[in-house]
Parts: sequence; C-alpha cells; structure tokens
Amino acid sequence: MIPARGFPPSEYEARTNRAQRLMAQSGLSALLMTTEPEIRYYTGFLTRFWESPTRPWFVVLPEAGRPIAVIPAIGAHLMGQSWVSDIRSWAAPDYTDDGVGLLAETLKERVPAGGTIGVADGMESHLRMPLQSFDALKEALGSRRILGDGGITRHLRCVKSEAEIAKIRIAAEIAGRAFDRVGELARADVSLAAVFRGFQILCLEEGADWVPYLAGVAEPGGYRDVIAPATDRPLRAGDVMMLDIGLVWDGYFCDFDRNFSVGPPALSIQAAHARLVEASQGAAAAARPGATASDLFHAMRAILGSAGATGRLGHGLGMQLTEWPSVHAADRTVLEDGMVLTLEPVIDLPDGRILVHEENIVVRPGGAVFLTAPQVPGIRCL
Amino acid sequence: MIPARGFPPSEYEARTNRAQRLMAQSGLSALLMTTEPEIRYYTGFLTRFWESPTRPWFVVLPEAGRPIAVIPAIGAHLMGQSWVSDIRSWAAPDYTDDGVGLLAETLKERVPAGGTIGVADGMESHLRMPLQSFDALKEALGSRRILGDGGITRHLRCVKSEAEIAKIRIAAEIAGRAFDRVGELARADVSLAAVFRGFQILCLEEGADWVPYLAGVAEPGGYRDVIAPATDRPLRAGDVMMLDIGLVWDGYFCDFDRNFSVGPPALSIQAAHARLVEASQGAAAAARPGATASDLFHAMRAILGSAGATGRLGHGLGMQLTEWPSVHAADRTVLEDGMVLTLEPVIDLPDGRILVHEENIVVRPGGAVFLTAPQVPGIRCL
Repeated sequence: MIPARGFPPSEYEARTNRAQRLMAQSGLSALLMTTEPEIRYYTGFLTRFWESPTRPWFVVLPEAGRPIAVIPAIGAHLMGQSWVSDIRSWAAPDYTDDGVGLLAETLKERVPAGGTIGVADGMESHLRMPLQSFDALKEALGSRRILGDGGITRHLRCVKSEAEIAKIRIAAEIAGRAFDRVGELARADVSLAAVFRGFQILCLEEGADWVPYLAGVAEPGGYRDVIAPATDRPLRAGDVMMLDIGLVWDGYFCDFDRNFSVGPPALSIQAAHARLVEASQGAAAAARPGATASDLFHAMRAILGSAGATGRLGHGLGMQLTEWPSVHAADRTVLEDGMVLTLEPVIDLPDGRILVHEENIVVRPGGAVFLTAPQVPGIRCL
Repeated sequence: MIPARGFPPSEYEARTNRAQRLMAQSGLSALLMTTEPEIRYYTGFLTRFWESPTRPWFVVLPEAGRPIAVIPAIGAHLMGQSWVSDIRSWAAPDYTDDGVGLLAETLKERVPAGGTIGVADGMESHLRMPLQSFDALKEALGSRRILGDGGITRHLRCVKSEAEIAKIRIAAEIAGRAFDRVGELARADVSLAAVFRGFQILCLEEGADWVPYLAGVAEPGGYRDVIAPATDRPLRAGDVMMLDIGLVWDGYFCDFDRNFSVGPPALSIQAAHARLVEASQGAAAAARPGATASDLFHAMRAILGSAGATGRLGHGLGMQLTEWPSVHAADRTVLEDGMVLTLEPVIDLPDGRILVHEENIVVRPGGAVFLTAPQVPGIRCL
C-alpha cells in the first residue's frame, strides 16, 4: 500500500521536542540549520530548488516552540504550507546583506546574551552559507557564541519513525521493480550509457519522483570503480555490470545495487557473489538493537576477508543517499530499533578488481528486516 | 552535431593558467577547492557521487603546475583518468583524521611559511568540509593563512569556452525536444505529478544524462510558487502549467521553462506571456560585451514593470543550474563574449499570481545568441 505523502505535524513536533531536550542537556539556546536535510527534518520543506547554490536558507530551532524559518522570499509560499508559522524572508540575492542581518536579529531575539547556538560541525556536515556571511554573523551576534551542536540532529535522524521507514520501503520497492526489468534494455552491444538512461526511465515508470543517483560499471571479471558516470562502451559477453541506484520517493531514498552478467558468469564471479550475499545476510542477522555499527562491519569482514578502498561496508539511509552512521570498524554507534542502514559488502577479485553488493535494512528487536528484496546467491544473467 | 564528451587537457590547462595569473596578482600561493563545480572546473572530475555527503574532497591549485587532488581513496581511480597526475588519497571516512593531515601536508609543501591560500567565501559559495576539520586545518597550517580568493574561480567560470557552450547547447536542445512532446502526456485530468514523472522520462529519452532539476506548477490564471514539487492534483481546463527544467548533458546544464495552457488561455494570460517574450527579447538584444548584468535587468524591468519576489531576472548557467552573475539591479558584472545566461522575466498578475518565462543565451559581440529555441508570443495550448 502506498502511504500518504508528507507527514502530520505530530511528526515534526516529535522531532522538535527530542531536539529541544538534547539542546537543554547541552546548554544550547538554539540550533542553526543551513543544509537541505537539516531544514527539511524540522520543517518538511521539500523542494529540488536546493540545486541552485545562489541563496542561503536558515532555520533556527529555539529552546521551546516551533522552528523559525529565515529564508529567501522565493521560498516563503512553500514554507507557508508547512507547520512552521514564523517565517521571515528577504529578497535574496541581496548584494548588501544576504540574510545575515535578519538571521542575527532572529537569533538575538531567541538566544540570551552570552548564550550559545549550535551548528553541525562534525563528520559528514558542512555549513551551507558563505564564509564571509558566517564571519559577519558571528560578529553581529556579539556575546552569543556559535559552537558545535554535538551531533544532535545527526543523532536524531539515525532513528527513523514508522512513517519514514514506510517511505524508504516504497523507494526500495520502486527500484526493485526497475531492477526486475533491466533485461528489457541491457544486453550485449548496448552501451552502458544507454543502460543508464534506460534504467532511470524504468525507475520513473515504476514510480520514482526523481533519480538523484545512479552509478555503475560494466567490465569483464569485476570492476575497478564504483562512482564513474557511464561511458559509450557497449556491453560485451563476460562483463559484470553493476547498477547502484539512489532514487527518491516523497523525499526519501533507497540506495542499493544489483549485479548482472552479460552471458553466463565465470564460476569465480558466482562464488564471489555468493560470498557477498552471505556477508549481507550475516550482517543483517547481527543488526539488533544494542549491537554497534562496527559489529556489522566485523560480521561482514569475517566472511569477506577485506573491506575495499571505501573503508566502510554500509551506512545510514533516509533523507539522504548516505547518512550517519557508517558500517565502519571505528563507528561505535549503538544500533536502535528503527535505524535504517545499507549493508554494502565488497570482495576483492584478481587484478585489483572488486565486486560489491548492497541491501537496505531496518534494525528491529527481532533482527533486521530487509527493505529491499534481498538477493540470493546466483548473479543475474542478461 | 553531438560534440565529443569531456575536454582535451588544453581546456584544463587554460583554466589553470588563467587562475594562476589571477592568483599571482592577488598574492595567493594556492587555491583550495572543496565543492563539486570548483573541483570539476580544474580537474574534469565528473561523478554523481557528490550526492553522498560523507566524504570531503579537496583540490589544491598551486601557483604553478597542475592541480593536486587530495581525495578519498574511492575516487582515486576515476581521478586517475583525468589530467591530474598528483593524486593523494586516504581511506575516508577516517574517524581519526578525515583528510585534514594529508591536506595540511600538501598545502605546507606548496605554500611558503607566511603565505596565503584562497578559498571561495563570497555570495553563492560555501565550504564543503566540516567546520571542525576547517578549524583543525587552520591550526595545522600555522603561519600560512586561509583567506578569501577574491572570487577568482567564480569570475573565470562566468566566461565559457566554445566547448562548454556546445555542451550547454546540447542540453538545451534535448530539453527543447522534450518540451515539444509535452502534449503526449499532459492534458486535463492527468495529475501534475504524472506530468513531472513523464516529462523527466521524455528528457531522458531525448538524450539527457540525468535530470537534477524539475520544478513547476499548474494553477488557474497564473501561479504563486515556482519551486514546489508536484502534487497529485489533476490538471483542469483554465490551468496555466509551467515546467522549469534543468537537465544535464556531459556535466553541463540547461535551465529554462515553458508555459502551457490547459484548454484555451484567457486573453490576459496571452498578453502577459507576450510581454514576457518581449522582455526576454529585449534583454537578449542588450546582452553585448561591455553591458552589465544590471543593464539586462533594467531592460526587462522597463518592459515588465516588476521583478517578482526573487529579486533577479536571470543568472549565469553552466556546470551548475544557476551560476554567477545574477541579472539583478545590483549586479555590475560586465558581460563578456562567451558568458552564458538565463533570462527569466516574471510578470505580476492579479491575486498575487505571477507568470514566468526563461530562455538561455550566450553573449556575443553581435548580440546574444539563443541556446534555447526562443518562444514567440502565444502560450502553447494542451
């Protein structure tokens, strides 16, 4: 069943309340958000307009009450349809003061003199505003200081609500149906570029809202790269083709790949693929509340014997293609019911080649539940 | 004719040489790049992997010689196919030191003690690395200081090479063919969401590599929002539907919109549309080397009488959906041969509604040349 689009205000209220409890514990009088997922998390503001780098967008989460939007006028109408009631806007781009004055005024109103404002400053974060503006903001705030937020929003976003999980599941189901149809377009002599184009069409036909990410490769006996765009090289018998799709439904991503063999695969490829499936199953079995992200890493590593060049074997998934935590030896994040993860084992093949495989799961008390239709050993043949 | 993909090394060499001349004038010993378009501009590194926020990527442009890539190991193979020969990588994500040490070492090697390193810090820019890492980097650099780059890369990117213009033209032609086919899918009783999905399919069928941006709206008698995602509301007779497409071919965008009327349009809508076409033609005629971006703004404003809530009536276009400069009253950027711009007039209608229209042009000594097939007055009827 397709769930309703959007969320009821109670979803945003719950997120806000949780953040405000953590802010109180950290002594933060406000959070300042500047990036798309942070802003959407607290407001529901969903638009592809972030593709334009021109305008900065700000949301202030005060210690009590709803978030306050300090945004370019072009977004005021759309934000006005969210649960946010305090919307302050300016005619961006403004060559004299591009929102800094309005933002400083808002923060001064909600943060006492000497108070602290948290911004995301840890791994995977960045500040989406010009450095000059950030310096001007700090100057304008006087005794109010901007400090790291201690990962409050990153932490909260790790655990998904049932409504969020339902959206990720829909995204994964759409991609699953598209993968089932790859045989309609991929065969020997068709270029990988044509497959990429056709596969994005399949994703849209099956219900994707948009397709922000597709990577893949086709090489004989495994591949050396998993992030390159497609080339015009035609598929050839013996190629292993991998497609890694991140499509969006109602603002939520799936992120998984599938491997295909052009003609019958070598036995060594079949064996490697079986090992990858085994690794993802092993990690899924270990993905219970109380285990850590690094436990999943080691569960896969024990089966695989390597972790490839990426240093991680999976990651969080949700409003972004990749989210915190990483399935990484150094990541001690404790898993909780409702965390959505990708399991992305990689196996080394001769000649510096690799084979990768990826599934999406949700952590549950009784063991992980797959959001993707999990692969069985046996690479698909085109 | 479809131009070749990619660029010869001479393209990157020319960009690098131009930047190094400006760096010398500014007393900068290096530029530090952290965002996708900056890094691609000097290296050609093209991947959709930027969709993942996990890893920081760095490119250092020293005062002489080729750029140096300081990047996660997952990108080393792809970067190795570019003209960049000095590629330093680490196994990101690294929870102890996520590239900062390697970057600091690289900068210290190329920047003398007391020297300065430029980063983009002005409007439309941001630093794509965690604030904690940036602070650690500044600390590690000791007497070497990071300052604003004075807009060097932003300035260079405004003027496109003939090879870049050819790619933007291809993107615009693909979108033009997709717009010609909108009648295949849009009609009364079809939802706007279905039109969005179908239009993205048309863009891919006509040759888009991917479709990073689609916005639009359908409302009776004009619209109030130009950045919202599609809803399930069915089109109805009397609706004005606007689709604004930013698709990519070989890493370059087009960005233009078209309006359609569901059933015969009101005379007032036809008149407003004719005014928008007139405004874009007027601005195109004024878009000669030596004129300023604000001259184009005023040329349109004189015809339109308003500039809408966005504060600008067009912008640069190329590797990003929107680039510097803005067609804005305050933007004194002097136009040069080879600048690619969008002209995006907006006209006020009753009830807070607007109508927008957008074309893509390249500035030429003899007057602007349209990269889009420019509209004539007369809104298209579905």
